[in-house]
Amino acid sequence: MASQHIGTARSDWASKTYEEVESVADADGSILIVPIGSVEQHGHHLPVATDTILVDAVAHLAAERVEADVPLLVTPPFWSGFSPHHMSFGGTITLDFDAMLEAIENVAASALKNGFDALLLLNGHGGNRSLISAATSTIGEEHDDVEVLGLTYFSLAARFVAEIRESELGGMAHGGEFETSLMQHLRPDLVKEDRIEGSMLDEPYELGIRDLVEGGPLAVYREFEEYSHTGAIGAPELATPEKGEEIYERLGDEMERLLREVHERNA
Amino acid sequence: MASQHIGTARSDWASKTYEEVESVADADGSILIVPIGSVEQHGHHLPVATDTILVDAVAHLAAERVEADVPLLVTPPFWSGFSPHHMSFGGTITLDFDAMLEAIENVAASALKNGFDALLLLNGHGGNRSLISAATSTIGEEHDDVEVLGLTYFSLAARFVAEIRESELGGMAHGGEFETSLMQHLRPDLVKEDRIEGSMLDEPYELGIRDLVEGGPLAVYREFEEYSHTGAIGAPELATPEKGEEIYERLGDEMERLLREVHERNA
Amino acid sequence: MASQHIGTARSDWASKTYEEVESVADADGSILIVPIGSVEQHGHHLPVATDTILVDAVAHLAAERVEADVPLLVTPPFWSGFSPHHMSFGGTITLDFDAMLEAIENVAASALKNGFDALLLLNGHGGNRSLISAATSTIGEEHDDVEVLGLTYFSLAARFVAEIRESELGGMAHGGEFETSLMQHLRPDLVKEDRIEGSMLDEPYELGIRDLVEGGPLAVYREFEEYSHTGAIGAPELATPEKGEEIYERLGDEMERLLREVHERNA
Amino acid sequence: MASQHIGTARSDWASKTYEEVESVADADGSILIVPIGSVEQHGHHLPVATDTILVDAVAHLAAERVEADVPLLVTPPFWSGFSPHHMSFGGTITLDFDAMLEAIENVAASALKNGFDALLLLNGHGGNRSLISAATSTIGEEHDDVEVLGLTYFSLAARFVAEIRESELGGMAHGGEFETSLMQHLRPDLVKEDRIEGSMLDEPYELGIRDLVEGGPLAVYREFEEYSHTGAIGAPELATPEKGEEIYERLGDEMERLLREVHERNA
Amino acid sequence: MASQHIGTARSDWASKTYEEVESVADADGSILIVPIGSVEQHGHHLPVATDTILVDAVAHLAAERVEADVPLLVTPPFWSGFSPHHMSFGGTITLDFDAMLEAIENVAASALKNGFDALLLLNGHGGNRSLISAATSTIGEEHDDVEVLGLTYFSLAARFVAEIRESELGGMAHGGEFETSLMQHLRPDLVKEDRIEGSMLDEPYELGIRDLVEGGPLAVYREFEEYSHTGAIGAPELATPEKGEEIYERLGDEMERLLREVHERNA
Amino acid sequence: MASQHIGTARSDWASKTYEEVESVADADGSILIVPIGSVEQHGHHLPVATDTILVDAVAHLAAERVEADVPLLVTPPFWSGFSPHHMSFGGTITLDFDAMLEAIENVAASALKNGFDALLLLNGHGGNRSLISAATSTIGEEHDDVEVLGLTYFSLAARFVAEIRESELGGMAHGGEFETSLMQHLRPDLVKEDRIEGSMLDEPYELGIRDLVEGGPLAVYREFEEYSHTGAIGAPELATPEKGEEIYERLGDEMERLLREVHERNA
Repeated sequence: MASQHIGTARSDWASKTYEEVESVADADGSILIVPIGSVEQHGHHLPVATDTILVDAVAHLAAERVEADVPLLVTPPFWSGFSPHHMSFGGTITLDFDAMLEAIENVAASALKNGFDALLLLNGHGGNRSLISAATSTIGEEHDDVEVLGLTYFSLAARFVAEIRESELGGMAHGGEFETSLMQHLRPDLVKEDRIEGSMLDEPYELGIRDLVEGGPLAVYREFEEYSHTGAIGAPELATPEKGEEIYERLGDEMERLLREVHERNA
Repeated sequence: MASQHIGTARSDWASKTYEEVESVADADGSILIVPIGSVEQHGHHLPVATDTILVDAVAHLAAERVEADVPLLVTPPFWSGFSPHHMSFGGTITLDFDAMLEAIENVAASALKNGFDALLLLNGHGGNRSLISAATSTIGEEHDDVEVLGLTYFSLAARFVAEIRESELGGMAHGGEFETSLMQHLRPDLVKEDRIEGSMLDEPYELGIRDLVEGGPLAVYREFEEYSHTGAIGAPELATPEKGEEIYERLGDEMERLLREVHERNA
Repeated sequence: MASQHIGTARSDWASKTYEEVESVADADGSILIVPIGSVEQHGHHLPVATDTILVDAVAHLAAERVEADVPLLVTPPFWSGFSPHHMSFGGTITLDFDAMLEAIENVAASALKNGFDALLLLNGHGGNRSLISAATSTIGEEHDDVEVLGLTYFSLAARFVAEIRESELGGMAHGGEFETSLMQHLRPDLVKEDRIEGSMLDEPYELGIRDLVEGGPLAVYREFEEYSHTGAIGAPELATPEKGEEIYERLGDEMERLLREVHERNA
Repeated sequence: MASQHIGTARSDWASKTYEEVESVADADGSILIVPIGSVEQHGHHLPVATDTILVDAVAHLAAERVEADVPLLVTPPFWSGFSPHHMSFGGTITLDFDAMLEAIENVAASALKNGFDALLLLNGHGGNRSLISAATSTIGEEHDDVEVLGLTYFSLAARFVAEIRESELGGMAHGGEFETSLMQHLRPDLVKEDRIEGSMLDEPYELGIRDLVEGGPLAVYREFEEYSHTGAIGAPELATPEKGEEIYERLGDEMERLLREVHERNA
Repeated sequence: MASQHIGTARSDWASKTYEEVESVADADGSILIVPIGSVEQHGHHLPVATDTILVDAVAHLAAERVEADVPLLVTPPFWSGFSPHHMSFGGTITLDFDAMLEAIENVAASALKNGFDALLLLNGHGGNRSLISAATSTIGEEHDDVEVLGLTYFSLAARFVAEIRESELGGMAHGGEFETSLMQHLRPDLVKEDRIEGSMLDEPYELGIRDLVEGGPLAVYREFEEYSHTGAIGAPELATPEKGEEIYERLGDEMERLLREVHERNA
Repeated sequence: MASQHIGTARSDWASKTYEEVESVADADGSILIVPIGSVEQHGHHLPVATDTILVDAVAHLAAERVEADVPLLVTPPFWSGFSPHHMSFGGTITLDFDAMLEAIENVAASALKNGFDALLLLNGHGGNRSLISAATSTIGEEHDDVEVLGLTYFSLAARFVAEIRESELGGMAHGGEFETSLMQHLRPDLVKEDRIEGSMLDEPYELGIRDLVEGGPLAVYREFEEYSHTGAIGAPELATPEKGEEIYERLGDEMERLLREVHERNA
């Protein structure tokens, strides 16, 4: 039977009645998480919704860790992101920057009316980074009484990933060791094991991005076909479900710590 | 484990690699379905994502019926709609009209680049009707070579629902006999049976809307609290899962007929 | 002498001084009607402003019927509508969807400041239907204390036209039996009797539109040249001024009933 | 009978079939005139549509003078303008600057597709001056092959009005000697002779506006209630229909000269 | 050393601390001047920033004349203007009309929060005229309690320039006798004396512009390459630094008179 | 004499004729630098234009280092940025996010028409970071044939500043040791030595920003008055002109390396 797309986890906004939503939002130190993903090419071996799947999973993992103590809801994920640089490959659905920013502002404006004390825009797509940062500012400016936060979840991995990775710098980029491992752990049914192939990230500018978790200060606009003929960038062949699990749990630890801090500071 | 929000049905765009998306889109008479729902109050007994759950289910039911013969993909559902008239209750997430229109146009513009021959905007929320109709025009105008269609799925029920319903006119409105029956069939875990309560639709204007499936010519803007103190409008107490199943299958019949017609006319 | 374009009927906003406008608007149960037409091709025999002429006439007919009892003003008609689907023929002036929506919102915002209790957007062009419906929502949302209504006048004919028409379904579409009869009655000087020629509406989708007064649930974007080589759709050759007069008076009856209802409900 | 709002003059776009529109537009040196007026308070004695009535009359007068030799059409008038400075009085309908600019750009874009060689935006409202000038630039930029012109008709009077006027500088402003005379000539039925009252224009800045036909270089934003308690500015009590006729004919002379020049330069 | 671009004049907003800005703004009759220039081709002999240089100089000259008595600040100049008609030459940076209007509105909205009693938008570029006039209206409408003024500085020269000029009408246009003289006086280092060459302004329409300081009522959109092969229009060969100095001082006299009037009227 | 605001450095776009601009842009590997600053409160001791002064200085320093070998121009600086979080203090001029983004896109679109091979958006204001990153994407998307880069100049200091600073983490933030030292070196005339006072950056979130050159992954929206009662954040009392000089020269080294790399990669 279809209709599996809306979940039933305790913290799912979508599965609640409006009275239940209000009841959570009214509680002291309540948090709203909006996961923001993308549908864009992820090489030959990963599904186009990889970023949406992962950010949604991380949001719910975090929620499960704290929901006994922290009043919190998670909206369904934004499944379309800002991905003009992927359009030279197929399978990509992209929003214009300003249309996406306005949609996120609209979601925040109506959702926050229920009384949440904090909002976390949780992003899972590299192309959305500046947009999430912009939205944090424009929403923060509009909502004086709400703590407005923005975070790209895989940035958290900078704190622990060196202990796990086997690839050199450049191996954890777009559909590389990091994302492939997570998908092998979380959605092995969606990974085409026999089509795994990527190119190490090789941004020519010394000041440019080096990896999913290590960026230089220079922003460079580049169509992804300049980096990789498959569309995947990094070393997906080094991915394992075990690494995926470890990364996932460590992300959960970081997220848990953050959510507890947000709750306490706004209770 | 979380991450259940992205499905694995054969026709799920999200679960495909970009090569698979292109392969379907390239086929003769290919169809793209974009389900468009809402997150808005649905009374005391139904979840706020009811419209998204139902339109997504109908889209996938239709896809399953024809996917053996018709090349077709379904995007994840738009889960936020145009619902200013529900904001006096909580639990509602609404987009501005123009922001939502632009987002749908963006999705169509990038998705259609893969080569689909037809696009069906499949809507499941009354408040989105004019928006879907508008988007059909603006997208159709931009994409000469694509058959652009818009449909609110429950309008299809006008052809058969009299055979099923027990309620008088006004009993199938917002969270009434129709939607509650469908939810009891599809997602009984999300129906609060002990909180079922609605008010029959009683639009005072003779020319106004009479029911989910029968509208007069007059558009009236009305906050939903004018119609119902619970937020549900219609006769949800008459709902049964059996009716839900019958409605669902009959919707599937109608959708199947339409999709085969679209495919044939554009192959 | 020129300058006949602004009328002098008792209910004409344009011909009043500002003090007179305020005086009507201040009265209990006052109504503002904004007629919304179009300038777009209407086949070989009708002028491009047909929709504007007819909606303006219906608005004033309705006003005359009730103005002794109901405080009411009619603005000049919007003469340009949303008609991208007519651009393959000449003679058409079209606004972008969002520009037209914003213009109508602006007109409402400034006009309603005078104190009207109700607003009726009265539309006369098929291509404007979704726009009028959208405007009813966005204006209604902005103006809590005003009853905001939208109506496409020829939808009213569904209630009586079977008694008058000679054409089969498909004969009353764009410049067909219905509109041509009305024009022969109201503006025979603008009908080219020797150029009357149309094609019966033959929308291939079973769920698509059937007639001016009977639409299926499926919205289809189609350039009008797909329907007719002259631009006129329907059976204009069956039109007579007598039918036009009867339709006109019956529309007047429906409109009168509606305006009295609006007045009473908001007095 | 209603429906008098759309004229039947030889040069009326609205009354033509689409074939007739194309035929004029295709001719060498063809000109399209778009009259742009306003609905805004005009004191106690003049109707709110005064600017629309006058600019429409001047456009048709000019057309009649040359239509034997010059292929030319006139659209219906824009009856709503940019008038925020009149909102402190009632009776005013105003568009936002950008909405009005976009609407004019849309009208030009679709109308010019018929093949006109020149476009004249003919304005009749002081508040629209910068908007018409802006539209001349933005439309000119978009349409390389069309001569795009903008003109506020009463500026033409600077060349002859001293010979006619009795009032001092400041007597011909908003609803003053000039406009009242024209209305007495053209639409005496709409002038309330017993309510004629105005205040001489007394802009305090030496560099500011002095009169309808004489402006200093300094733009000053001022609500009109600062100038006049009735809303009329100037010396309407000096108006006569004879002056109105003379002004009107002299305007016709100027317009005729201009249209012939436009035609010759673009034939 | 670089960083000379932000000045240190007593009235420079940019060089003040925020406390100093507030202190000036709070004083009675305080004035904010926003100079608005352009970067666009100015023929073979003048730099592209000529309009910005001159309007900035005039703003500061005026400020110096009155700053002992009048509380006043000058923002840095807008250096990019509305110049689509110059794009056929190189060296031009232009903003879209609506983007520039919005930017000026934003600057005014935040700057006026400090408490200024008056705002003068001082323009130095012909292409910005309608934009400055529009901005005066839209900003004036938003800020009831502030005197909002707009002025194109070279319009002031109409009052005295006949005493100074040697060129016929048409010699003071774009990079002609007027602007070249001013630049020879103010920034001789930026004038290429050996490349001075222009074409007399020869607008064919009798009602069109005649000169920088004398315009007819007709707005004509024209790419500047239609007027001049070098891009300069007028008689730059008649320019002298002495004329430049005299013009500059006379402009200073006019500006001083205006600023004192503004101060007094708003103290 | 005023008019010092437009420089005469060899690489100043503003001071060139249009022929000179084109000549640089046409050369192989040509680079356009657009400095983007801000006018916003900088505590009691620094001028509001500090960010504009510094980014402009760094742009010109870099240009001087390479202009003998690299064809390159620098536009005047954008002096207004995105600073809603500073509005609780005075002296700030802020643009809306989308207005500023559109203005930068417009500048790029017209400037790049001259033929530059690369564009560097060089930012000097923390609040602009996401905007510059967004602009890099949207401009990059529009201009396939141009290398589009974005950089916040003080991020470069992360590579060397530990060798220079005396303050702990948190001492180099907004108007702290870093910016004050640079200003003491570059514009000592604009530093109020007797008003130097700041508060160490103390962002409570562990994952939040730590310093001008060290940021955590979490974006937090915070009005600056939450961080500091003077508006300055960091340790400005540790600033010296010597440190400023050293930082400045090291920034020059980094910028020089980058510009040479850009030139070589695009020649």
